[in-house]
Formats: sequence, structure tokens, C-alpha cells
Amino acid sequence: MSKPDLITKLPAEPHEEMIKRFGCEGAFIPGDDERNPWVPFGDQAAIKHLAFDVRTNTAANILWVKGGGRIGTHKHLGVVSAVTLEGSWGYYEYDWTARPGDFVYELPGTAHTLYSDDPNGMKALFWLNGAIEFYDDEANYDFTADVFWFIDHYVSYCEANGLEVNKDMFI
Amino acid sequence: MSKPDLITKLPAEPHEEMIKRFGCEGAFIPGDDERNPWVPFGDQAAIKHLAFDVRTNTAANILWVKGGGRIGTHKHLGVVSAVTLEGSWGYYEYDWTARPGDFVYELPGTAHTLYSDDPNGMKALFWLNGAIEFYDDEANYDFTADVFWFIDHYVSYCEANGLEVNKDMFI
Amino acid sequence: MSKPDLITKLPAEPHEEMIKRFGCEGAFIPGDDERNPWVPFGDQAAIKHLAFDVRTNTAANILWVKGGGRIGTHKHLGVVSAVTLEGSWGYYEYDWTARPGDFVYELPGTAHTLYSDDPNGMKALFWLNGAIEFYDDEANYDFTADVFWFIDHYVSYCEANGLEVNKDMFI
Amino acid sequence: MSKPDLITKLPAEPHEEMIKRFGCEGAFIPGDDERNPWVPFGDQAAIKHLAFDVRTNTAANILWVKGGGRIGTHKHLGVVSAVTLEGSWGYYEYDWTARPGDFVYELPGTAHTLYSDDPNGMKALFWLNGAIEFYDDEANYDFTADVFWFIDHYVSYCEANGLEVNKDMFI
Repeated sequence: MSKPDLITKLPAEPHEEMIKRFGCEGAFIPGDDERNPWVPFGDQAAIKHLAFDVRTNTAANILWVKGGGRIGTHKHLGVVSAVTLEGSWGYYEYDWTARPGDFVYELPGTAHTLYSDDPNGMKALFWLNGAIEFYDDEANYDFTADVFWFIDHYVSYCEANGLEVNKDMFI
Repeated sequence: MSKPDLITKLPAEPHEEMIKRFGCEGAFIPGDDERNPWVPFGDQAAIKHLAFDVRTNTAANILWVKGGGRIGTHKHLGVVSAVTLEGSWGYYEYDWTARPGDFVYELPGTAHTLYSDDPNGMKALFWLNGAIEFYDDEANYDFTADVFWFIDHYVSYCEANGLEVNKDMFI
Repeated sequence: MSKPDLITKLPAEPHEEMIKRFGCEGAFIPGDDERNPWVPFGDQAAIKHLAFDVRTNTAANILWVKGGGRIGTHKHLGVVSAVTLEGSWGYYEYDWTARPGDFVYELPGTAHTLYSDDPNGMKALFWLNGAIEFYDDEANYDFTADVFWFIDHYVSYCEANGLEVNKDMFI
Repeated sequence: MSKPDLITKLPAEPHEEMIKRFGCEGAFIPGDDERNPWVPFGDQAAIKHLAFDVRTNTAANILWVKGGGRIGTHKHLGVVSAVTLEGSWGYYEYDWTARPGDFVYELPGTAHTLYSDDPNGMKALFWLNGAIEFYDDEANYDFTADVFWFIDHYVSYCEANGLEVNKDMFI
């Protein structure tokens, strides 16, 4: 398949030069890159971090909860969306079960407790805008996971394990 | 597995009542719901629409490009991210190939041409913030796909095929 | 000056009907409307609430700090911007002084303490994306002001004072 | 007024170090800085640019329309808000008149034509998320003003007039 020469033909708009001078490129983050490890999140879960935006407090990652695991009750301070990649999962507070290809979005102010009783657990890609407040089993405030919490989770693990920090992940 | 009674124990913050009065719930969008069909997008591609936010001009959907297909050159007016679900794909302008679990983010001002030369094509979940300008093969401006374009693509197909419009998709 | 008939001449794009069916109108919020009162915020300050977006956790308001007043140390979980309308103010942590027409933007993770030692105090329009964590003078966590906190601040005052809640403020 | 030593007392959260390593500072943009000139926008208007965010396609600026002036019909592809600083103005399509302290927000899909028939014209601070499509008096598409258009408007003027580009404006 030959590659059409389209981009170079795009109209040279007056501000096209400004895109070159001031614009930022995106990035490709391979899922199996050794710089993107599964970082343990408690005993029953792990997170593969994919992107961080410190200006808008957003993060993208794949959450892996092993069969029988759950994630503590949390409350959203921004919009969160998720697409399921493997297995199945739900929130104790709702009656649906998410399977591969199913999509969920969650809005500020809502709170829920994620679980997977699938023998194979679950994996889902989460895109998190804004911070998340976690509560313990007694419903006491535990901690706030904002983009810097996610960065710390990732960078501390890389540094403790001699892995290179993937700079492309920082939008 | 018993369901812990956490939510009802969350501290009744002064504004908790306001969340009940003014907050909005999120939604679960099943991937195999008949109200979420594959809507043809040209001859070689189809889109499964998942969510629309008319206030922030964002949309989420799964793009399916069949083997050998491509999507016209487009330029971003906002942040777009994608996670690959099946097959493989790339942009003619970059040298990476995205496979299941790989993640991509793209920033305003960038332009590129999506293709899949995988015999099995590709499926990826896209989260699109802001509009996208499409160009034809001669690099002439073709049309702008903003959230209303995506809504029209979905709703027109539903109405032409006697399918119910899924109101949960509207954030 | 006659009013040109431009809008009705805008091209009837394929999705123009969808804008009519699914789009939302904006709003005009008069600054001197009795439904938009100055709501006391401690002894030395007041807030005139202007807009709330519960889906993205954002709020717009005018902050009025009287001469000699200050606002407790707070930390941002999102982007905040401000334009000064009257008087002058600053943050103890930075060396600038903001006067009418001056603009400030603040990013997630930063923390600061607002003061005005201007005899006339200060007024500034703030646009707040995401929540703000307040700390007391001993640097202990005090409370989190998200959009529902701002709504509660506004609605509770209206209801206690027999004022109508201005529905246009809810984006 | 003595400066309390609050910030240094803020709890050293686990991720506080990450804020120092990966966080970005905000900025103070003085309204009367010679690096922030009034850049002509047609014969009857000028723009004082204040901030640009190329990652989210947003811009902040003060629009000055002289008495009797108007700005061509435009359509929004994102959320726009404005607070009036001086004079008065409106849109031909709505019946309100905005005066100092009045606030307006506008949502994607809406289109309108700004005018000021105030002898003193108008000045208002606009915060623009996403691009704006301008149309001419015959309702033909004219051009799209995204963040790069605003950057070009500002930088080209600075370079043509020997003014330093204010790097703080780039979020």
C-alpha cells in the first residue's frame, strides 16, 4: 500500500507556521513496553500507567483487578470514563456487569466501589479527569488520588526497580 | 460476595445534599446493545458511538477499519486519545503500529491519515475532545466532525433503521 | 443600526438539525440581579456566584475580599484563572500585585494564600476548573471546595434569605 | 501585614515531591505590559491576548470593540465565557445588553454576531475553549480561529513591531 502524500499538501494556513513553532506532538505508548510495567495497587490489583497531564489533572491507565478483588470506595471530582478490555467487573452500587467492549462514564459527585468476582478478574482502560477521593471500609476519608498521586505511583515504582521513566507519557 | 454498606456511611458533608439535588449520574453503555449499532463510515469503516457531550464538544466511540481501509487525513482541534482493542493500525505520517493494549494521544494542530493493512483490520476506542477537520485526497477541506456531526451520524442511522436512540449516551 | 439577518443564512449543514435537537443554549447572568447576591465567605470576603457546571466540576464567580482580608491557603486540583476587576491583591507566596485588567492563571498542585492590603480591597472574576483544597492556619486540611460546595454556598444562602435560585447559572 | 508561613507547613504528602518535579507553575500577566499590546482585529476592534494553551486549544484575551463596531458572525466549537469590563455590548441574536460585571457563557453549536452601539464601545475578558468558526456577511465560511490563530495574531504583531513575545502567556 503506497502512502499518499496528503499532509504536505494541506493548505499553508496563515497560522500553520505557529503550529510548527508552538504546537506539541502527541505520543504512542506501547502497552508492552518495559517502561510501562504493572505497578501493584494493593494485593489484588495493579495499574499500567499510560499518560499524565499535569496541567489539566488527568491520567490514563489500565486497571487490572484480579478475581475476587475490589477497589475501595471512591468519589469523583471530575469526569471518568472506562472501556473494558478483559474479564468482567461492576460497582456494588449499580446492577450492571461490564464485559469487553462495554463503556462506562462517571460524573462528579458520584461514589462507588469497584469489584470483580470474575475468576479471570478484569482489565479496563480508565481516562480520569480530575482527582478521586478514596475512603476506607469504615467510610473514613483515606486519600486523594490526583495526577500527582498517579505520577508518584508510577515514578516511585520505576525508580525502585531500575526502570526508565517513559517521558512520552507526560502530555 | 457480600456488598459492604459503604456509600450510606460516607460522611454527610454539608454539600452532599446538593450532589443529590444538582448532580448528574453517569451511565453504562453495553457494547452489544442493539441501540449501539455499527454505523457505516465510508465503505471500509464503521463507528460504534458510545457517548456524546454537547457542552464540551466531546464524543467517545469505537472505530472499526476493515483490512486495507483508511480514514481521510484529518486535523485535530482538541485532545484525542485511543486504545487499540483488536487488530493493528497506524498513521501514514508516523512509523509506529498500534496493537491491542497500545495507547495513543494526539494534540491540537496535528494532522494524520489512519490506515490498517492488517488482514483483520482494527478496532480502537477513541475519546475525542473538540472537533476534527477532514480533508480529501487532494488536501482540500472536506468537512468538520464535531460532536453534532457524530450525533447526526448516529441518530440519522437509528431513525433510518427503526432503532431506538440510546438516551444514556448523552452526557 | 439595523440587525443583519446572518444566522438564518448560515449554511444548513447536515448536522444543523442536531444542534437544534440536542444542543444547549448558553446564558446571560446579569451582575446586579437580586438572584445573584454577595454571599458572605468568612468575615472579610464574599462571593457572587455566576455559573456552575456539575459535569466538569467547574464554577465561575466574583471574589470580593475587603481591605486587610485574606483567604485561607488553598491547593488546586485543576486550572484556575482570574481577571482583576477592582482594587488590588496578591498571594503571600508570589511577589506580584494584581490590579484591574491583570490576569492570573494557576495550575494543579500549586498552593497559595490570597490577601488584599488595599484599603479598597479587591474584586476579581475567577473561573475554577476542578476542586480546591483549603487548609487552616496550622496547615491542617480543612475542606474541599468542589462545584457542589459552591452550589451549596449559593443555594443555601438563597433559601435562607428567600431569594430565587437562578437556574440559568447551571450550565 | 506579616506573611504567615503556611505553605512550608503543608503536609508533606507522598506525592508532594512529584508536584515539585513534574508540576508546572502558573503565571501573572500584567494587563499594561508592553509585551501585551492591543492587536488590531479589523478596523473597529482590537484584542489584548493574555494566555494560550496549545494542548487543550484554549485562549484568554480581552476583546475591545469600539463604539459602533461589530464582530462577524461566529459559531462555537467549545465553551466560551465572558465578563464585561467596560462599556456595553450584545449579540444581534439575543435581547440582553452586557454591562460591567455581567457574565455570559456560550455553548458549542450556538452562533451569534457581537456588536457594541455604546459610544464608549466595550471591553470584555473572554475565555475560549476550542475553536470558533467565522462567517462573512453573506454567511459564507470565512476562517477558523483556534488557539494557533490567536497565537499567530499575537506573535506576528509582536514580531512586526519589535515587541518581545511574552513566554508566560503559554500555559
